[in-house]
Amino acid sequence: METSIALASRIHALECSACGQSYSAFALQRVSACCQMPLLAVYDLHEPLSKASICQAEGSMWRYREVLPLLHEENRVSLGEGFTPLLTLGTLASRYNLRSLVLKDEGQNPTGSFKARGLSMAISKAKELGVRGCIVPTAGNAGVAMAAYCAKAGMQAVVAMPRHTPKAFKEECYWYGAEVQLIDGLINDCAAWVRQTNANGELLDVSTLKEPYRIEGKKTMGYEIAEQLNWKLPDVILYPAGGGTGLIGIWKAFQEMKVLGWLAAETKLPRMVAVQASNCCPLIETYTGRQANAHHYVGKPTIANGLAVPRPLGEPLMLEVLRESRGTAVSITDEQMVEGMRELGRLEGLFVAPEGAAVWMAARHLLHTGWLRADEQILLLNTGSAQKYLENVEGQY
Amino acid sequence: METSIALASRIHALECSACGQSYSAFALQRVSACCQMPLLAVYDLHEPLSKASICQAEGSMWRYREVLPLLHEENRVSLGEGFTPLLTLGTLASRYNLRSLVLKDEGQNPTGSFKARGLSMAISKAKELGVRGCIVPTAGNAGVAMAAYCAKAGMQAVVAMPRHTPKAFKEECYWYGAEVQLIDGLINDCAAWVRQTNANGELLDVSTLKEPYRIEGKKTMGYEIAEQLNWKLPDVILYPAGGGTGLIGIWKAFQEMKVLGWLAAETKLPRMVAVQASNCCPLIETYTGRQANAHHYVGKPTIANGLAVPRPLGEPLMLEVLRESRGTAVSITDEQMVEGMRELGRLEGLFVAPEGAAVWMAARHLLHTGWLRADEQILLLNTGSAQKYLENVEGQY
Repeated sequence: METSIALASRIHALECSACGQSYSAFALQRVSACCQMPLLAVYDLHEPLSKASICQAEGSMWRYREVLPLLHEENRVSLGEGFTPLLTLGTLASRYNLRSLVLKDEGQNPTGSFKARGLSMAISKAKELGVRGCIVPTAGNAGVAMAAYCAKAGMQAVVAMPRHTPKAFKEECYWYGAEVQLIDGLINDCAAWVRQTNANGELLDVSTLKEPYRIEGKKTMGYEIAEQLNWKLPDVILYPAGGGTGLIGIWKAFQEMKVLGWLAAETKLPRMVAVQASNCCPLIETYTGRQANAHHYVGKPTIANGLAVPRPLGEPLMLEVLRESRGTAVSITDEQMVEGMRELGRLEGLFVAPEGAAVWMAARHLLHTGWLRADEQILLLNTGSAQKYLENVEGQY
Repeated sequence: METSIALASRIHALECSACGQSYSAFALQRVSACCQMPLLAVYDLHEPLSKASICQAEGSMWRYREVLPLLHEENRVSLGEGFTPLLTLGTLASRYNLRSLVLKDEGQNPTGSFKARGLSMAISKAKELGVRGCIVPTAGNAGVAMAAYCAKAGMQAVVAMPRHTPKAFKEECYWYGAEVQLIDGLINDCAAWVRQTNANGELLDVSTLKEPYRIEGKKTMGYEIAEQLNWKLPDVILYPAGGGTGLIGIWKAFQEMKVLGWLAAETKLPRMVAVQASNCCPLIETYTGRQANAHHYVGKPTIANGLAVPRPLGEPLMLEVLRESRGTAVSITDEQMVEGMRELGRLEGLFVAPEGAAVWMAARHLLHTGWLRADEQILLLNTGSAQKYLENVEGQY
């Protein structure tokens, strides 16, 4: 019934993030065969592309379709994700004497978190490539988002989630008709179960960075930040890094926009700060040299479920972003997160997930140490709404 | 610190919705002194105003600032409300052989419901008019939204809510620092408590239609529907009507756009359907002549908390919309709502509030009776996300 409408995607290949080897962008791919590392999408960006190509009528992340990987409109699986507001936090800025404090509120996405972007893109591409069902290990929000987009696409959905995850995450998956497997442990234990269950590869494993398109959805946060700030970037972006796709994706977007000329050649890119939970901070351990890498890191649960990612596949890419941007990494305790939630709730009318509160507390910490200056423009990335986390913070308002 | 930036608002007066008497739009107003009925904002719409005046860079309801009542930019209290997606429900349309079925997803607003629009506007105007604190009786969502916007504005917030309201509504209010009074009964009992507590008028009572600006926020849904459908309206809009501000507001927007010429003179306006809960359907009782009006109607609780409004002040205005639009009113049982939630979850990836599910079930009912035809364009208005309602529907997926 629907006719095939070709989109103007500039995608032309996928590249191994470790060695650069090229792979087809027009066949189903997982990690790179060469290094077993994430594949990243590469676009033809040298052919002129004006900012006027941004589809203004599209109030979602799909406004940037030329730099997204979807080829045919009828494969788009969308619930209206992206183009979330960038809010000015005037009261907090006054209280802490800051020149400019803004927050990108990803809680206003479908399913209540930034995961909607990545899963909308991954499930759309899965549909385009003929996939019938998907599976994912998750700390919570990614599973909910995958369940929703698979329902919309008519695909089977299998979600593996730590048993201690708040009930609201599980229940929402059930409403979308997904199968939910509860696992004792953290997301890496869920991942082990997924590998075993899906050993025959019958379902597409859409684990963070194990397929190349979630990051393409996530990178739209970077495009939006630039567009919403009128193509001038903030001095610093603080980001809650679990799997790290968003951190890597935003940085990828900045690089692409430089090549496109959407960012002036002399634009100074923001210093990128990865914020983790004290209970699970593998990146900080590596960044500060206390371990060679996170391959054997053991984490504990945290009220910021999305930060309980002990062994992120994207660790080398995250470290590269911190290095290239002259950024840093900070860990925040669960108690500090609750304090941040209170402050953002009472002073700014925002009910942010513990991950988002961690980011604000990290800004306070870095202002205190002097790494951040009060006259810099600071952008906080809140990855989700606190609604599904109520069980974690009950009565602590 | 901030300089006063005058907006281009075309507002010039307020008018009693019952007798048309005029009131100042530049002083604090409540209901009309003449009839004790809602005041409605009137704009200068005959002076040409092009659609190009819509601020495309503004991804929120504030894109229509000329037809909104705020005078000065610095009084805007915003969390990014409005400009929510209009989603195509392709799977349901196929299953029920419908030509075109779309859903406006208000669950993607700040605080998870359409109430954000009205409260953003009311609290912005309250700030502009020097108000220091607000009070509201609520079935849930309006209280949460008021608490959030009052927090953002630095105002005191007092919320009166039925004791049986799911905990998630109460907790979110607490996180915003609001005072919450739990009342035995429904929203009319909360309203009685508010009148008594606030007899001296110290706080601004922002009850539905007791101040003139919530409806001005709500009407932006009508502007967005027109803009998102490229200025061609659907044949039918189904709306879950509790207090009814949205229904009245959308209709007001259509009238305004006709005067502005944004809708062609020959545009056929949609038939408007008010959807209520079987447990509380005062409008249907009046509409079908079983009572003269809802003044003494007694309702029961429903899982669609927002529909438990036994005696809506806006009843005459809602009935007028149904009459003028050749619409109708339908009631849906709680069991049917759960069935609708399942269907929207599993087939469309949407976790809608029971109110939104009621609207879909009403469409099915009207298709069955033949009042709605399968070749008509049908728009469903989903007023909120189901997240805060989990307690009402636990395990019923």
